[in-house]
Amino acid sequence: MKDQFYQYILQLQDTITSGLEQLDGTAKFQEDLWERAEGGGGRTRVIENGSVFEKGGVNISAVHGALPPTMQAYFGVGQVDFFACGLSLVLHPQNPMVPTVHANWRYFEMYEADGTVLKSWFGGGQDLTPYYLFEDDAAHFHQICKNACDRHDAGFYPLYKKQCDDYFWNTHRDEARGIGGLFFDHLQQTPERSMPDWYAFVTEVGNSFLEAYVPIVERRNKLPFTAANKTWQEIRRGRYVEFNLVHDKGTLFGLKTNGRIESILMSLPPTVQWVYDHHPEQDSEEAKLLAVLAAPRAWV
Amino acid sequence: MKDQFYQYILQLQDTITSGLEQLDGTAKFQEDLWERAEGGGGRTRVIENGSVFEKGGVNISAVHGALPPTMQAYFGVGQVDFFACGLSLVLHPQNPMVPTVHANWRYFEMYEADGTVLKSWFGGGQDLTPYYLFEDDAAHFHQICKNACDRHDAGFYPLYKKQCDDYFWNTHRDEARGIGGLFFDHLQQTPERSMPDWYAFVTEVGNSFLEAYVPIVERRNKLPFTAANKTWQEIRRGRYVEFNLVHDKGTLFGLKTNGRIESILMSLPPTVQWVYDHHPEQDSEEAKLLAVLAAPRAWV
Repeated sequence: MKDQFYQYILQLQDTITSGLEQLDGTAKFQEDLWERAEGGGGRTRVIENGSVFEKGGVNISAVHGALPPTMQAYFGVGQVDFFACGLSLVLHPQNPMVPTVHANWRYFEMYEADGTVLKSWFGGGQDLTPYYLFEDDAAHFHQICKNACDRHDAGFYPLYKKQCDDYFWNTHRDEARGIGGLFFDHLQQTPERSMPDWYAFVTEVGNSFLEAYVPIVERRNKLPFTAANKTWQEIRRGRYVEFNLVHDKGTLFGLKTNGRIESILMSLPPTVQWVYDHHPEQDSEEAKLLAVLAAPRAWV
Repeated sequence: MKDQFYQYILQLQDTITSGLEQLDGTAKFQEDLWERAEGGGGRTRVIENGSVFEKGGVNISAVHGALPPTMQAYFGVGQVDFFACGLSLVLHPQNPMVPTVHANWRYFEMYEADGTVLKSWFGGGQDLTPYYLFEDDAAHFHQICKNACDRHDAGFYPLYKKQCDDYFWNTHRDEARGIGGLFFDHLQQTPERSMPDWYAFVTEVGNSFLEAYVPIVERRNKLPFTAANKTWQEIRRGRYVEFNLVHDKGTLFGLKTNGRIESILMSLPPTVQWVYDHHPEQDSEEAKLLAVLAAPRAWV
């Protein structure tokens, strides 16, 4: 399974980066290969200063070795070896009318001392962070997420949509990071569902990514915007930074397993502002976004 | 002691904000009073868009009540009541030739069920974060720190200087946040030193702040700078954000005790950049700063 999934993310990275380069039309992804001293490494692809994308990364990594002590405590296990691979992407567009997107698909194994698999699971999801709310975009993104889920289980979309709303909650701000999507973790073998079943589901979601995001970029990227719109985008990007550095488990995992810092922190936006006690004007487009982020909504 | 120290920080906030307003010449601190639902509150003073200061805050707070469960675990105690008060300041100058400064002086009490004091201690310090290194400035700042320490104990400066270098180490970047200063915590009563002795020391450091920082601002604030210097400042401010959100215990304490978010996060810089895998040119002024941040240096 680990080889099969690793081959899948290698190929998915190619598909996504070539799709996004075509969409951007100007910038190309810069590739960096890196190795982890304790075992494994990754292939980082970063795009900067494009026509569409101000900054973004579509990264894969596959790391293995002894599970670090801090992560043992986190998983509630003793000294074990582990393997983890995944694809993580974050795209920060230039135009504030285009939402930021994040996606991640990952596979994890922990081993007994004799090398047999103690536990294995999939995780991942995809979610959208708009700066200005277009309800059509939110509905489209969620519809594609739902379609991918429904091909496997009618219960998946409501469950993983809710888990996404819960996970990307910026507790210290008491607001959502964005308008959600899907989030799933610890997808393990059960009597009803084998690991190949989960593989089929997770790759179905992975394969839906471009269909979920690209049409939104295409319809918003040519919209005019003002300096005030850009300032708002940069202030909201500050909340994105806060979530990723204070709450995000993926970032934490990377920092605690001696991952490559520049690959982990590619998720941070290119330009960001913190304005003291900023509040948008009542009934403005900015205030409408905040109202939506205050309480998760049903989009499909 | 708690009343005495609280009166001290009230007065110190006035002294520091009026000194900084005079230095800035344009902007005034905006004051916000806030209350904490569980007990206590604060007086936040923020300056923005000044001639000298792009953004900064000089805040006091005094909070009390039941110690939150997350903080019980942190301090290794059970259900206890606590009181904490302090002054925290961070100043982000416009001109990249002027360093950012941070300082904090605080007092903490935990109580037995019958209300008697279980434990009390002082903490605090002050440290400098330059974007361009002027060795004179680093030496001046450390000399004032040392003078304040030496009036109490010849061992204090080397000890608290080292603790500052250790504390403000951005582990995931393997570099210092800045060029240090003083950091002390858990200053408790001992056979050699009473709480009034510690009060005298901590207030001595508090009283030295303007003398440590203002002359540096005065000599660097009129220096010319380029857009490239400003970009470098914004990239380095990104490291400041990373430290404060990932590692800083004061920020963590504020977030976990339901402090006022806008007061806690006033420490975050006004404009910030994250550039993928940025490296300054060899032998540049920017590279010289990085060399100094790679290994703490003796400044006096």
